[in-house]
Amino acid sequence: MRLLVVNANTSAQVTEIVARAARLHAAPGTEIVPLTGRFGARIINTRTENAIAEHALIDLLAEHGQGADGVLIGVSYDTGLAAARELMRVPVVGMTEAALHTACFLGARFGMLVFGRRAEESYRELVQRYGLVQRLATLHGIDANPSDMYRNPGMVESLVVEQAGRMIDEHNVDVILLSGAAMAEMPPKVQDRIAVPVINGVECGTRLVQTLAALKLPKARAGSYAALPAKELVGVAPAIAKLFRG
Amino acid sequence: MRLLVVNANTSAQVTEIVARAARLHAAPGTEIVPLTGRFGARIINTRTENAIAEHALIDLLAEHGQGADGVLIGVSYDTGLAAARELMRVPVVGMTEAALHTACFLGARFGMLVFGRRAEESYRELVQRYGLVQRLATLHGIDANPSDMYRNPGMVESLVVEQAGRMIDEHNVDVILLSGAAMAEMPPKVQDRIAVPVINGVECGTRLVQTLAALKLPKARAGSYAALPAKELVGVAPAIAKLFRG
Amino acid sequence: MRLLVVNANTSAQVTEIVARAARLHAAPGTEIVPLTGRFGARIINTRTENAIAEHALIDLLAEHGQGADGVLIGVSYDTGLAAARELMRVPVVGMTEAALHTACFLGARFGMLVFGRRAEESYRELVQRYGLVQRLATLHGIDANPSDMYRNPGMVESLVVEQAGRMIDEHNVDVILLSGAAMAEMPPKVQDRIAVPVINGVECGTRLVQTLAALKLPKARAGSYAALPAKELVGVAPAIAKLFRG
Amino acid sequence: MRLLVVNANTSAQVTEIVARAARLHAAPGTEIVPLTGRFGARIINTRTENAIAEHALIDLLAEHGQGADGVLIGVSYDTGLAAARELMRVPVVGMTEAALHTACFLGARFGMLVFGRRAEESYRELVQRYGLVQRLATLHGIDANPSDMYRNPGMVESLVVEQAGRMIDEHNVDVILLSGAAMAEMPPKVQDRIAVPVINGVECGTRLVQTLAALKLPKARAGSYAALPAKELVGVAPAIAKLFRG
Amino acid sequence: MRLLVVNANTSAQVTEIVARAARLHAAPGTEIVPLTGRFGARIINTRTENAIAEHALIDLLAEHGQGADGVLIGVSYDTGLAAARELMRVPVVGMTEAALHTACFLGARFGMLVFGRRAEESYRELVQRYGLVQRLATLHGIDANPSDMYRNPGMVESLVVEQAGRMIDEHNVDVILLSGAAMAEMPPKVQDRIAVPVINGVECGTRLVQTLAALKLPKARAGSYAALPAKELVGVAPAIAKLFRG
Amino acid sequence: MRLLVVNANTSAQVTEIVARAARLHAAPGTEIVPLTGRFGARIINTRTENAIAEHALIDLLAEHGQGADGVLIGVSYDTGLAAARELMRVPVVGMTEAALHTACFLGARFGMLVFGRRAEESYRELVQRYGLVQRLATLHGIDANPSDMYRNPGMVESLVVEQAGRMIDEHNVDVILLSGAAMAEMPPKVQDRIAVPVINGVECGTRLVQTLAALKLPKARAGSYAALPAKELVGVAPAIAKLFRG
Repeated sequence: MRLLVVNANTSAQVTEIVARAARLHAAPGTEIVPLTGRFGARIINTRTENAIAEHALIDLLAEHGQGADGVLIGVSYDTGLAAARELMRVPVVGMTEAALHTACFLGARFGMLVFGRRAEESYRELVQRYGLVQRLATLHGIDANPSDMYRNPGMVESLVVEQAGRMIDEHNVDVILLSGAAMAEMPPKVQDRIAVPVINGVECGTRLVQTLAALKLPKARAGSYAALPAKELVGVAPAIAKLFRG
Repeated sequence: MRLLVVNANTSAQVTEIVARAARLHAAPGTEIVPLTGRFGARIINTRTENAIAEHALIDLLAEHGQGADGVLIGVSYDTGLAAARELMRVPVVGMTEAALHTACFLGARFGMLVFGRRAEESYRELVQRYGLVQRLATLHGIDANPSDMYRNPGMVESLVVEQAGRMIDEHNVDVILLSGAAMAEMPPKVQDRIAVPVINGVECGTRLVQTLAALKLPKARAGSYAALPAKELVGVAPAIAKLFRG
Repeated sequence: MRLLVVNANTSAQVTEIVARAARLHAAPGTEIVPLTGRFGARIINTRTENAIAEHALIDLLAEHGQGADGVLIGVSYDTGLAAARELMRVPVVGMTEAALHTACFLGARFGMLVFGRRAEESYRELVQRYGLVQRLATLHGIDANPSDMYRNPGMVESLVVEQAGRMIDEHNVDVILLSGAAMAEMPPKVQDRIAVPVINGVECGTRLVQTLAALKLPKARAGSYAALPAKELVGVAPAIAKLFRG
Repeated sequence: MRLLVVNANTSAQVTEIVARAARLHAAPGTEIVPLTGRFGARIINTRTENAIAEHALIDLLAEHGQGADGVLIGVSYDTGLAAARELMRVPVVGMTEAALHTACFLGARFGMLVFGRRAEESYRELVQRYGLVQRLATLHGIDANPSDMYRNPGMVESLVVEQAGRMIDEHNVDVILLSGAAMAEMPPKVQDRIAVPVINGVECGTRLVQTLAALKLPKARAGSYAALPAKELVGVAPAIAKLFRG
Repeated sequence: MRLLVVNANTSAQVTEIVARAARLHAAPGTEIVPLTGRFGARIINTRTENAIAEHALIDLLAEHGQGADGVLIGVSYDTGLAAARELMRVPVVGMTEAALHTACFLGARFGMLVFGRRAEESYRELVQRYGLVQRLATLHGIDANPSDMYRNPGMVESLVVEQAGRMIDEHNVDVILLSGAAMAEMPPKVQDRIAVPVINGVECGTRLVQTLAALKLPKARAGSYAALPAKELVGVAPAIAKLFRG
Repeated sequence: MRLLVVNANTSAQVTEIVARAARLHAAPGTEIVPLTGRFGARIINTRTENAIAEHALIDLLAEHGQGADGVLIGVSYDTGLAAARELMRVPVVGMTEAALHTACFLGARFGMLVFGRRAEESYRELVQRYGLVQRLATLHGIDANPSDMYRNPGMVESLVVEQAGRMIDEHNVDVILLSGAAMAEMPPKVQDRIAVPVINGVECGTRLVQTLAALKLPKARAGSYAALPAKELVGVAPAIAKLFRG
């Protein structure tokens, strides 16, 4: 199986973390193909950067999608998920989407830790879009950003452990969800210090996309995710234009 | 991996269908252990039978749970799911729960087909309990019951294809979910005649429980799914009483 | 009128409290018939014990239901409520269900006090199942368990008064709902010290089930609560098997 | 017990129907005091008439409220309910509110029949306000108005029976709720021809207000339904002004 | 354009504040017609006073509505809004409704400051009625009442600034909504000290009602806001009776 | 005032329709600046095209945003709205967002007509994202596409009138919302034949963005819509990179 791990950020360093975590969770014989965005922000943390990255994600899939058996969106905003699911004929999974649904199998309500207060609202909107608000007990932005993961991982770990403890005490959560591609390798490092299961979207998503691929479901011929129609797009990369040739 | 497929109905015939479908979707080397309820209805289709079957399910897990690496609840009412998840230290997945979350990765909104009008409300309550109402476009009980699957499978297939078509036309659904353990083998038989992906909970659940087991998450020490406390239960099977010995 | 007060716990001590409170609120001439579960936990406080108790409740109703004019479920988890409502031809009311709906007639939003943090989520799920989340302002598990009611009632009272005060201050609640069969006699003891009405499910339920019985409504012949069909159940108590003889 | 049955319509004919139904459901020794609005519409069926009737209701309670033990709002819009509940020290129940909560004890989801298409939205808003939307399966305005109850009751009965049947067939409802004060006496007349329980708010409300009165709960001293503060109102009936004298 | 600014309170002082703020936001050539209630409370802050004021509002519109091009309800409870919208043939806007919808154009979720804890629930109900709960992050009643605006405006300003700051810190709100007609002139006074946009309903409503009037939409001939039918009302002001002459 | 009307489609023909309608609704002295996307689909109707268009929208605003006093997103998917609102210091309004909120001032629940069945789900998601689902009565995709507006406007008009009538009859809607930039000029043409107000987002949005601009609110310095941080973006148009220079 050929699994694309698509990071619409332009930072290869984050792609590397995600790909490493994905390899740990891929079945034997799975080829992990890491892809990094060709334009946009190093690490997305505004709505504007995310909007640009949606195009970057389509650009990557148009270029490299052929022959893939599945796609994991390796950005925690699940950038471009709906478009990717529509344009691909194989399963596409967003890493946060994967973590949210996985959390539902582990308990009643979950707590979600993200990087920074500013991002809180965007993640809440994601949970709302997926229709899972009833399962979200609390969401908090820790006072750190993704690049602190390279510079000062111990500090981030401490913040995570402390906030997770607070979520368990105050909100009685059954699961802790660590959002952020840069946190892909953190769950095993903090699990001992946190009294409920701790998950991240890369491990969940890598496994779920393989699961979906194994179901060998056909591409929808009706509904809102049917294949792209033939039509002309202008001013876009040739590979993107080609997606619309039917 | 040792995977229990637990059917809290007392009909071994249904267990057989479920086990067969589960084997198709289990990874190589997985041992499928089919279990059939020791008391209660042949095939549950009232709230009363389902309540009795919750006990039957716990009875089966208490007796056979040791050494298991995962549990699939092979009754489409997800009978006893919350209790099973609490009492086991390994992942437990309900077949309908599995299908509902899988459907979310395949499109925006899904349609759900169940056996009989009477059951409609119970399934709606299930979707509500899981917090996924926003993703449910429509739910309909076809005019057939599980035992028609042995007697007249062609008639059931026709009803499914016809209703699925109507759901696509009228409600624009992206996915069709066939509920019912007895429908475990139907998706590949009707997929060609239905324009969107068709899924059943046994295939979804078999794969998801393996996925969860692979994450090797610890049992919660806090929250509403923490391990059972030590306490005395009276008048129950010895194996059940033993679950509460800490 | 013959009113069954059914405690699916196996502790006669709790049944006693419930029956005493029920007698206070029964109309003259009402016969209160207290029933205690024949198997399961002394006092339910996990999902697993509750699942077993659903069967215990059906067992009691199958054995003693004939000739009853109404049923009050005297366990605060409303154990087996849906099944009991389906199988009986007379009104069935859950004590927490009764308190929740009663609270709606007394103000806009209510606060709910339960025994222990672990139980919080199960009660939240109950409120959700009944569709009353909009009316729930806050829910808190006090640091005590039902047996503290015999050993140290003063301590429980203090905790209740303190938490109720906090709910009024912080959440502006209009009503306090004391959950738990063991709290059936507490409202009059703490009402003076709490600035809004305080209710418990036994008083509410005892009165509501009489109210419903007086309406003399027929058993549904359609819908999801129609009478049980005739079918064979195996391995169950003879009285239960008899319920399914049509 | 002295129970006010307050009809904020100005038609004594409707008050009469409501009072008759209330008497049937009042405990022995209960004095039913029927009150008819002093100003406004004969039979409310617009938002504007309803707004005026809120004042009329307060006017009646200010004049006649002293010495009452309970209040039933005998208009199916539950006109002035929140205000009445706030200003009275004894229980106040709206007839539709009573029917809605009663329906919740009888099944999972209910269907609601009202007079006329125009009124549909107002009733939907009522259900929403009470937080019970999850329990409402369908709502329909029959092609008749309250005065048809005097002129052509047979025609109204036929419409009710026909629509109730459709609601059972198409929406699988467990209960039929007949809205409208003018329908207070209809349930027993149509019950035989409808396969699920049929209720009206007057019978439900008459019983529920007695139930609440029996609980002898104190008036809230905090929250959003605390007693009225002392303050000056101008240009209102002396009895209303007096309500605000503390 | 002739714009009625209708204050159903009986305090001309508040009308004055509202009218002054409305004039600041009216287009050149707009005639602002301030109207004060003829009966009821000086400043509404209970449900009972609000119910009376609904009639007072209709009374004012019946008397002065002719020739108006739009109506702004200048009471923050949006007293009588639904009735006014139904009875008038020109646009009617509630000041809080206007602020709530405006807030939606300025960010994701808003915080709402109201006068006094008691009023909190009434405003929450307003947000719920408009269907905007998803956009409300938090709502708090400051420890002040409208008349403090004349006596001690500095104290109110301090409370507002402090609470707004807390809402930004704790709830990450994008907009602060100052409820209350008496706060109509406060936004510009505190904006510098609050890090997100601050709005009040009078400025929003004044502009929105002009916007709606400019769309020149016809009065609905169907639906729940169609024109009033012809019918007889008794005991009401002649101008009100005239509204129902068709 | 300088108002950008931004069409992220690449079809100048649609921009023209939108700009014409916007001019009709702009205050005297307003300069309407129509902008057409530089890359992507002629007329967006899939999720993929929409994702690309988000980038195209940012590209246009980066290039032409300076000196603008407000922005109307002239694509009915409100393409790029959140990003545009974040990056601009002046008000930004989406045309469908504008129509949805306007509809709320005109009645209780609205019906929404869009081009094509496939698009239905995307519009439903939009309504959900804005938190207005409670106000949406029904949504239907007519069997036509935007280019039919040039080729066969009469056919589109007929479909609109017919479907609007059905929505009024079956769903009792108070307002009809015509989605689609290409329908910008249709409301006055069909209003006579439709019994409730008919609106389109261009007229609503043009007016609302002027209203918001007139409030002269500051750019948020906190929350999820604060100004863009300074950071480096790679591979993007120089004007976009410049947006992130602080």
